[in-house]
Amino acid sequence: MTHPAPSTSGAGLLGPGWAGSAAAAATSDRAFLAALLDAEAALTRAQAALGLAPRVAAEAVTRAAVPDRFDAAALAERARAGGNPVIPLVADLTRAAGPEHGPYVHRGATSQDILDTALMLMAARTLDVILADLARTEAALARLAAAHRDTVMPGRTLTQHAVPTTFGLKAAGWRSLVLDARDRVVRVRKSLPAQLGGAAGTLAAFSAYGARGATALPEAYARELGLAAPLLPWHTLRTPVADLAGCLAFTAGALGRTAADVLTLARTEIAELAEGSGGGSSAMPHKANPVRATLIAAAARRAPQLAATLYASMPAEDERPAGAWHAEWEPLRDLLRVTGGAARDAAELAEGLRVDADAMRAHLDLTHGLIVSERLSAELAPLLGRARAGQLLTDLARRTCREGRNLGDLLAEQPELADRDDVDLAELTDPARYTGSAGALTDRALERR
Amino acid sequence: MTHPAPSTSGAGLLGPGWAGSAAAAATSDRAFLAALLDAEAALTRAQAALGLAPRVAAEAVTRAAVPDRFDAAALAERARAGGNPVIPLVADLTRAAGPEHGPYVHRGATSQDILDTALMLMAARTLDVILADLARTEAALARLAAAHRDTVMPGRTLTQHAVPTTFGLKAAGWRSLVLDARDRVVRVRKSLPAQLGGAAGTLAAFSAYGARGATALPEAYARELGLAAPLLPWHTLRTPVADLAGCLAFTAGALGRTAADVLTLARTEIAELAEGSGGGSSAMPHKANPVRATLIAAAARRAPQLAATLYASMPAEDERPAGAWHAEWEPLRDLLRVTGGAARDAAELAEGLRVDADAMRAHLDLTHGLIVSERLSAELAPLLGRARAGQLLTDLARRTCREGRNLGDLLAEQPELADRDDVDLAELTDPARYTGSAGALTDRALERR
Amino acid sequence: MTHPAPSTSGAGLLGPGWAGSAAAAATSDRAFLAALLDAEAALTRAQAALGLAPRVAAEAVTRAAVPDRFDAAALAERARAGGNPVIPLVADLTRAAGPEHGPYVHRGATSQDILDTALMLMAARTLDVILADLARTEAALARLAAAHRDTVMPGRTLTQHAVPTTFGLKAAGWRSLVLDARDRVVRVRKSLPAQLGGAAGTLAAFSAYGARGATALPEAYARELGLAAPLLPWHTLRTPVADLAGCLAFTAGALGRTAADVLTLARTEIAELAEGSGGGSSAMPHKANPVRATLIAAAARRAPQLAATLYASMPAEDERPAGAWHAEWEPLRDLLRVTGGAARDAAELAEGLRVDADAMRAHLDLTHGLIVSERLSAELAPLLGRARAGQLLTDLARRTCREGRNLGDLLAEQPELADRDDVDLAELTDPARYTGSAGALTDRALERR
Amino acid sequence: MTHPAPSTSGAGLLGPGWAGSAAAAATSDRAFLAALLDAEAALTRAQAALGLAPRVAAEAVTRAAVPDRFDAAALAERARAGGNPVIPLVADLTRAAGPEHGPYVHRGATSQDILDTALMLMAARTLDVILADLARTEAALARLAAAHRDTVMPGRTLTQHAVPTTFGLKAAGWRSLVLDARDRVVRVRKSLPAQLGGAAGTLAAFSAYGARGATALPEAYARELGLAAPLLPWHTLRTPVADLAGCLAFTAGALGRTAADVLTLARTEIAELAEGSGGGSSAMPHKANPVRATLIAAAARRAPQLAATLYASMPAEDERPAGAWHAEWEPLRDLLRVTGGAARDAAELAEGLRVDADAMRAHLDLTHGLIVSERLSAELAPLLGRARAGQLLTDLARRTCREGRNLGDLLAEQPELADRDDVDLAELTDPARYTGSAGALTDRALERR
Repeated sequence: MTHPAPSTSGAGLLGPGWAGSAAAAATSDRAFLAALLDAEAALTRAQAALGLAPRVAAEAVTRAAVPDRFDAAALAERARAGGNPVIPLVADLTRAAGPEHGPYVHRGATSQDILDTALMLMAARTLDVILADLARTEAALARLAAAHRDTVMPGRTLTQHAVPTTFGLKAAGWRSLVLDARDRVVRVRKSLPAQLGGAAGTLAAFSAYGARGATALPEAYARELGLAAPLLPWHTLRTPVADLAGCLAFTAGALGRTAADVLTLARTEIAELAEGSGGGSSAMPHKANPVRATLIAAAARRAPQLAATLYASMPAEDERPAGAWHAEWEPLRDLLRVTGGAARDAAELAEGLRVDADAMRAHLDLTHGLIVSERLSAELAPLLGRARAGQLLTDLARRTCREGRNLGDLLAEQPELADRDDVDLAELTDPARYTGSAGALTDRALERR
Repeated sequence: MTHPAPSTSGAGLLGPGWAGSAAAAATSDRAFLAALLDAEAALTRAQAALGLAPRVAAEAVTRAAVPDRFDAAALAERARAGGNPVIPLVADLTRAAGPEHGPYVHRGATSQDILDTALMLMAARTLDVILADLARTEAALARLAAAHRDTVMPGRTLTQHAVPTTFGLKAAGWRSLVLDARDRVVRVRKSLPAQLGGAAGTLAAFSAYGARGATALPEAYARELGLAAPLLPWHTLRTPVADLAGCLAFTAGALGRTAADVLTLARTEIAELAEGSGGGSSAMPHKANPVRATLIAAAARRAPQLAATLYASMPAEDERPAGAWHAEWEPLRDLLRVTGGAARDAAELAEGLRVDADAMRAHLDLTHGLIVSERLSAELAPLLGRARAGQLLTDLARRTCREGRNLGDLLAEQPELADRDDVDLAELTDPARYTGSAGALTDRALERR
Repeated sequence: MTHPAPSTSGAGLLGPGWAGSAAAAATSDRAFLAALLDAEAALTRAQAALGLAPRVAAEAVTRAAVPDRFDAAALAERARAGGNPVIPLVADLTRAAGPEHGPYVHRGATSQDILDTALMLMAARTLDVILADLARTEAALARLAAAHRDTVMPGRTLTQHAVPTTFGLKAAGWRSLVLDARDRVVRVRKSLPAQLGGAAGTLAAFSAYGARGATALPEAYARELGLAAPLLPWHTLRTPVADLAGCLAFTAGALGRTAADVLTLARTEIAELAEGSGGGSSAMPHKANPVRATLIAAAARRAPQLAATLYASMPAEDERPAGAWHAEWEPLRDLLRVTGGAARDAAELAEGLRVDADAMRAHLDLTHGLIVSERLSAELAPLLGRARAGQLLTDLARRTCREGRNLGDLLAEQPELADRDDVDLAELTDPARYTGSAGALTDRALERR
Repeated sequence: MTHPAPSTSGAGLLGPGWAGSAAAAATSDRAFLAALLDAEAALTRAQAALGLAPRVAAEAVTRAAVPDRFDAAALAERARAGGNPVIPLVADLTRAAGPEHGPYVHRGATSQDILDTALMLMAARTLDVILADLARTEAALARLAAAHRDTVMPGRTLTQHAVPTTFGLKAAGWRSLVLDARDRVVRVRKSLPAQLGGAAGTLAAFSAYGARGATALPEAYARELGLAAPLLPWHTLRTPVADLAGCLAFTAGALGRTAADVLTLARTEIAELAEGSGGGSSAMPHKANPVRATLIAAAARRAPQLAATLYASMPAEDERPAGAWHAEWEPLRDLLRVTGGAARDAAELAEGLRVDADAMRAHLDLTHGLIVSERLSAELAPLLGRARAGQLLTDLARRTCREGRNLGDLLAEQPELADRDDVDLAELTDPARYTGSAGALTDRALERR
């Protein structure tokens, strides 16, 4: 059997949510190959910086560590023998560095030092991309919240109209979750450490090659890479991976919250929101599908399980586990990529979202005034007595549903209310006057930066 | 920002468990592109077979539907607009078929008809590959079970030696799970249906183009593809996807069972099993890592969560859901690929496994005879009385642990046993004589085909 | 610290989806205690049936094995020491059977034999309950599908109106999934095996107590319990648990599909469906929440992850694993209970569902006729030429959206169509005439039993 | 059918990992009922504090809000109608408060305000319990790490001996993960907010009853409860639940790391570690199972999927979602309980762990000196030249495996090494001299508090 060329195997044909995004670029096999080479070159440079290797060797290894000189597909297949791609990569890089400098490639390190460090580099680069898209998203949502601070719309619970709310408060809530995501991503981004421990995490081989102490080399290495210096080698202390799992699942879920609302409110029957440019359909020219929200929703469905696989790898046995570590690689990449794609789509969604304030206003009347029944319960009780007020509202609510007449009109017909001048029925039954602290909450939420 | 070329983005650099396998080939972007094109061409041919399209159009479309003429990476990026790759593919294929025959491309179909059908084709092709590797695996395990029918080894529970068992029974058990997996995969493989329903699953557009009845066209279509004809369009009835989730998670788990045992029994201190050719380590020439088992174990850690995402997509709203469907594509591909890679590794593992029967035998003595204490409880009770037998064994077990002396020797020193000729202490304390029905169970399990 | 009495710790205060259901009863701690006792008593009876124990002992053990005589909470706490509740239960049951018959309690068995068998009994009893509710559900859905075979409604894709469909076809699809679930549950129900293997699955201790052969005792045991006889002891061959995971996740997902549609179609703005008796709200008297659908949807969100935990336990090491087995117990119970509760709610939902055919019909006009644009593309192309037909429809679709006028009216104004007597515009633009094979598909689906 | 009394349905018979623990008490139905009542009483008190309700009403409600006066099982069944237990509870509490004060029960609130607040109270109380057990655990691990700072043992990777390490470093690593867990739990514990928003999160009903501003009442409410005041009502902004998911999955995984090592190192063949009091077996008196580690491992297998369900609930639509919210309740409780149980077991495990330093030392010789081959590669290269050193070691490693002779002895026979006085072969081949920075790393890790 001849296999199809691998050259088209990862273009994202099944992943429109991330294909072509900056996150896709930051997580491609080529990008990971570059990260592996960056890790190897940084190790030799760090050793040179401490006098443990010649500077020329560090320069030679750095010059050799160029992705284009390596064959990712061939490395992938050769990775099978030992179970990871670092083993064949070290062989190739050693050869590329030449006989004189080759011995300084990977000296004292274990495969996991390089692979974990490369994962952190890939993660750091993708988180930066994600943070940029979260910033665009929250800025657009802030604009929406401010612009619609007083745009009244039905509040819905368990799919049914409940009481009025505002679109400003809704958008401010979406933004609040995006900021929560940003804070969690920023915290994790700063903490991502380089990995350096040698075969069993004791740094012993580095000592054998002359390194002194437990901190100088790891710190020099981390400095070369722009990563944090680890307190301990973390071959089986998977805090960085678990933290990535948590902040990425959080981010996908946070963006999925906005998408869930957009998908609901863009329905043909509701149409309070629409995407800037909905996806078309060849057969049905009228359709404008909420495609950005759809792809974000799909990402949010996948992220929790990808994170679960990463959390499940924490109980790693020995000094390097047989399986738990290997099970992290692709899910971590997928989680970065899927969340990164969702962040791109969220930015586009937020920046292009069209709000139909008239539709929102019109829908407030769909329940014939019942949307303010909660308010009436509260306001009429002191006037009529709690029992009588409750009875009256229950009766009129039933009539409203049966007769399709407006609750306010029915109330106005009640003798006990009609002739009172301490009751402003028009005000009491105006949904726009029953938004509580929505405006103040929106203002407050927008103060957060 | 210039993105790295996508050409190296899916080589499997992070997936040594599947890179280079037949399952990888069957699930590559290129293979999926081919499946999409197969689905389109089959649709035109099916229409031609029913007289709904000219035969020459069917031939022209089939000729045009060649993967090499399409650009998977470009399709992937263009898929963003509408949220799936079929929309741009139809445009390209229509152009490739030419102005005369182009109108017969995709006629009456919806994107989901083609994408779902292509997923089923990809699944069918990958399941065939998996079944071949399961067959190799079970054959090798059958040989091991037969060869070691009477190879006694410690049975272990909660990590501790319990009572003796045989390696034959263990291998027969592994095989039994592989056969269970095979049966489930075969059942699902046969049931995989083509998808055809048109925009909302009513087949209405096909009727508009002249199709009659609800069954002729879907059946002709399925026939062209070698898939089952669906009872109903299943755009939101995701039985085929859920069934794939179940049989693949089962298979990965079944293979993971063997891997878990191999990883345990290959430990340096145990060394009862070794992989045919263990993975090496550049720095530590003595290491022979159980790499095949490690990669299988990693696959078994990922499969359950991938399956969970697929099961979670069953509650799909409307006639095509916004997100639940899109969330299936990559997890389904990953699950096929990861399980397919594990099946390849399992076949190699089973065929190359080295068994050290001497080590197994030697380990039976590690507990100084306590491994047969269950038997002694049973056999001595009728002789000494239940209470006395229990007391004696508890005392001697304690002495065995404390003094490191053999339980059989301590028993032989007991006056109440020493002079009895109805007790054959040598036989009673021989672990090899306490394997119960292990042999018979092995024979019976091997009768299953 | 004094702990609250455990007596109120499992009433289901956080589980309205299952509280008070037959599935709750079948999975309570008390029901599980009963299953454990059934398993112990059946073992002694099976031994008696084969002459390995006195009949009076079997009768005495059976008499003693009454849940009310045991303290579940105390057993739970005592289970900590050895890690499972069978160890203290055997002690108590032995005492309850009395000094003469006590020795025949649990003779030759291992804790896992009893615990696994009890899990299978609990599963079998719960599956029976689920099957009854699935039968009610499918019968009600069949009635709905038949009654609404020709009730036209908008087909919706990616949240937008696409082309017409019928509620009959939708309900037939729901039922089809329920039947798929039923078939999978029935298959698994029949296969659920008793567990019997002794300490390491070799049946050795039973031989020590006089049992002959590998099959007689397990078969007698299974017979006593109404379970299938196992081919092999399955302490670490977890096919039965994985199969339960699969069929239950499938069932929850299948029911979740109906719930997803009901939640959408019951929205205040859509209101095509309503639950028989919606859940009320104290503060908002007008609300009729789709509570049954909500609770089913919640169950469907939980089941996939519970199943994932069970699939993840398949790779069990040794003859009894340290953790993988223990991790199955509660998730299996939860999955049974949660799915059982969803089946109860689904039956009530299906039996009480109210369909507003008028609302469905009215919504067909929401897109001003664009819902049949697919048909017009197909039908006008032969009349006007494909290019011209496409251009015309695109133009008019745009006008329809902009001007809010009906597509049919705009078409009627076109000179090229107005004077043709081979075009019946009224028919072509009637959504009710564009339901394709919906009726035939419904009929066909209803033939399935 | 008569259902078994619910009184025994939640004793933990299937959950020996948490049964009887403080976390079980803090998460029982009764404890949750108490939390619901605390939330209701605090709401009335907060209103009284702001002059919105009479003080006597607040006192009366607080007096009435006593768990013993309510029937959890009946509430659970009545919760079905509206889908949550708050609705019937409010009815009962209103009645219990009496006709005069009853109207001040739940005034202005929505069910979700109370239920979410009660979940946070339950979480806060359980996290406090968990923190106490994490403190015990880390203290015990610190003692172990200090005591065994220089206890040399084999470092193992992919199940095989690699190079030496120390038990001190291993225990310091375990502790480091526990501290990471503690830091994450502490952060989340402090942030847990009260929930208060009213029907749609606008606080409108509270305004109708006289509340002013958006912050005074929520802050007073939070103060009454000892929870954080929320920035916004978070009915559909599920940060607190997602953060709990993350920190609890992290904690279970962190504890699972220790358990994984204990399970490996307690194996009969390895026996470097043993639990303080292993679990017994009735049939096999010699067994001392690592039960604490087993139960922790089981918890760590469940937590990731429970967390996934919680993360998957973040994309909640509307002002209260239909299903996503309901799906959180039991998984959150389970995750608290399961992690809490694991923390209890981890404390006992760490405090009782027995370390066999002699066994560790002895195992260093299992590979006949090959465990220091990495060092010899490094040290002999400058003496013999890199190529010659590599060749020599490869040859001798092969002889070591084949002949079972010690690598050091073979080296000593090499003429090129034998007569050199710059080579101390005894030192070079002593595993205890090849622990690199293990000691320094341990010291450093122990400085962290």
